[in-house]
Amino acid sequence: MIVAALDLLRNSGLAGAGLNQIVSASKAPKGSIYHFFPDGKYQLVAEALAQAERAVGDAMREIFARRMSTSQKVKVLFAETGDHLSESGYKRGCPIAAVTLDLDEASEELRSHCSRIFHTWVGAIADGLAEVPSKDRLQVAELILSTLEGALILSRAYGTLDPVRRGGKSISEYLALKYPGVRT
Amino acid sequence: MIVAALDLLRNSGLAGAGLNQIVSASKAPKGSIYHFFPDGKYQLVAEALAQAERAVGDAMREIFARRMSTSQKVKVLFAETGDHLSESGYKRGCPIAAVTLDLDEASEELRSHCSRIFHTWVGAIADGLAEVPSKDRLQVAELILSTLEGALILSRAYGTLDPVRRGGKSISEYLALKYPGVRT
Repeated sequence: MIVAALDLLRNSGLAGAGLNQIVSASKAPKGSIYHFFPDGKYQLVAEALAQAERAVGDAMREIFARRMSTSQKVKVLFAETGDHLSESGYKRGCPIAAVTLDLDEASEELRSHCSRIFHTWVGAIADGLAEVPSKDRLQVAELILSTLEGALILSRAYGTLDPVRRGGKSISEYLALKYPGVRT
Repeated sequence: MIVAALDLLRNSGLAGAGLNQIVSASKAPKGSIYHFFPDGKYQLVAEALAQAERAVGDAMREIFARRMSTSQKVKVLFAETGDHLSESGYKRGCPIAAVTLDLDEASEELRSHCSRIFHTWVGAIADGLAEVPSKDRLQVAELILSTLEGALILSRAYGTLDPVRRGGKSISEYLALKYPGVRT
């Protein structure tokens, strides 16, 4: 059920993750949602987002643990994230971004989850920026995540990876220009 | 009705812009939607997006027509867009991004609208990048829009303008580092 919910969130945010759609995609009996998630839909959505938090966070940590220059790692992060998008036929984006842009009064409780997850990812990227002075790492990691999230949206609308690919190249170039220790 | 629809899209994407919500927010009789928009909800949504395309495009052109350095204009673009977000209590973001992340099979027809609008905005920004070599302008404009869109999402989730403010500063700095003609 969590997998089905996450899939729907990646596709079309809260707009597509209605209880009926989640039940139908998961092939679980409808009543079971309230058995496993007594607080209802947003509890299930929060669980799905937490699963994305771990999966994406682990992927980020894995990329930044590779034996490459920081600049290269940034390009790989953009390239691999873009590959996931294109492999889905430009249909599956970042579920946290999708939920953040769908928040309304009813779903406001999910905002703190989205905020925490973005902070976790910024931290995971920052930990990998070995060649960036430590005082700048969080800010640079935030820029990387912002540009990645935005480029994924443009790429999804365009149906091409150009914005993601070029975004990764530009940010990587910025780091090399700004920090003498960062090799391109 | 278009204003009501756009407002709902800014708030919560297609998740929040159901026909019932649009009718209720616009205080128009329900039947009138099909009178003015015989093709239904997505025709109305497309009209609302076209209105956002013009309003945001005009605002971008106005900023880039000011007597400031390119680098300063980039910071102003981020600052003024961020102000709109914070003035709404971090509730109203970019409607094009919100719709792009909500696309599903039913709303797939809206993708070409989102794509066209992002291209229009990239063009509007590119036209204002006088100090950037013309061969690089579209790519730089795309980076600016990607980072802005992503930073707006992080800011919305965080409930602070830090990601938008810092994103504008970093991109502005990148331009000054890369292009000797761009003053900070």
